Amino acid sequence: MKALEERILKDGQVRPGHILKVDSFLNHQMDIPFINEIGKEFHRLFGHKPVNKILTIEASGIGVACLAAQYFNVPVVFAKKSQSLNIDGEMLSTKIVSYTHKKTYDVILSKRFLGPDDHVLVIDDFMANGCAALGLIDIIQKSGATLEGVGIVIEKGFQDGGQKIRDMGIDLKSLAIIEEMTDDSLTFRELDY
Amino acid sequence: MKALEERILKDGQVRPGHILKVDSFLNHQMDIPFINEIGKEFHRLFGHKPVNKILTIEASGIGVACLAAQYFNVPVVFAKKSQSLNIDGEMLSTKIVSYTHKKTYDVILSKRFLGPDDHVLVIDDFMANGCAALGLIDIIQKSGATLEGVGIVIEKGFQDGGQKIRDMGIDLKSLAIIEEMTDDSLTFRELDY
Repeated sequence: MKALEERILKDGQVRPGHILKVDSFLNHQMDIPFINEIGKEFHRLFGHKPVNKILTIEASGIGVACLAAQYFNVPVVFAKKSQSLNIDGEMLSTKIVSYTHKKTYDVILSKRFLGPDDHVLVIDDFMANGCAALGLIDIIQKSGATLEGVGIVIEKGFQDGGQKIRDMGIDLKSLAIIEEMTDDSLTFRELDY
Repeated sequence: MKALEERILKDGQVRPGHILKVDSFLNHQMDIPFINEIGKEFHRLFGHKPVNKILTIEASGIGVACLAAQYFNVPVVFAKKSQSLNIDGEMLSTKIVSYTHKKTYDVILSKRFLGPDDHVLVIDDFMANGCAALGLIDIIQKSGATLEGVGIVIEKGFQDGGQKIRDMGIDLKSLAIIEEMTDDSLTFRELDY
């Protein structure tokens, strides 16, 4: 998505340790009209599939998923990173290692909201090592639902998450894939979609 | 908001300990067209004010804030519940006690995204004792921004958060206020807006 690549080049900040900060428009402050365009792009890429539910994970995936869901006209379900006292016992769960936060999360989703009749599109804002997406895919498999695809806003193509998920035969499409990142340069992978 | 009261009566579940579960449409699975109507209602109530930013807190406030923000045509900024390694040092911060999760959070917001020129509408999905909203109000005060109002989807009117915030002279409007809640009944406060 050219507009996304241009926005990353304009507003993204590269920090030591291959950290890309896009918190001015994507995952802290959110540019809503721009993220709506991202939602439309996900619909262009996945709208032909029988998606009846969008699955994401708290927190920064929720806004993107909700704005995208308007174009699919389906509900969003978001997995939660820690057991909440307000959540039923009947939960699907998995574990996700967050390298950003340097800890392992228990990720949970109520069985009431994901089951064998569901055709799921996973949406998230970022993919690096793929741990979050793999955790959501594990939850989908445990639920008996059908995974229709994974849509990611920004993929760090120099980390192995995307490769791992594509090697599983999953339809993963990232709107921008960063091929290389140094402290003062970014190069994007050419996309054929 | 009558449609919200009806939806709570239809799909809400009351659990021991004055817990109201609305996770089938609001804060775990999200009914996007319905939450869009909630967003329009917030705009009806606050759209006459010079709001240039919507502030919420992760996680379940984000979806409501993003859908509502479309009607205000302003960005959303969400406060984060724990220091992320991807976040700048230059942070506004406060502490919030979560009775749901039985712990105290450090809540942080980048100073780059809230300052004296901002006119802020706070949006969140729930209010009980008001700790989350009071924390966001504290952050707004520290930033020098102007608080234009607080919009809450569901307020537990039998807890004291709403009263505390209205007593501060803040324009707090909740779309549904639960006056009384027992294990088998719900009554709503009559609203004049």
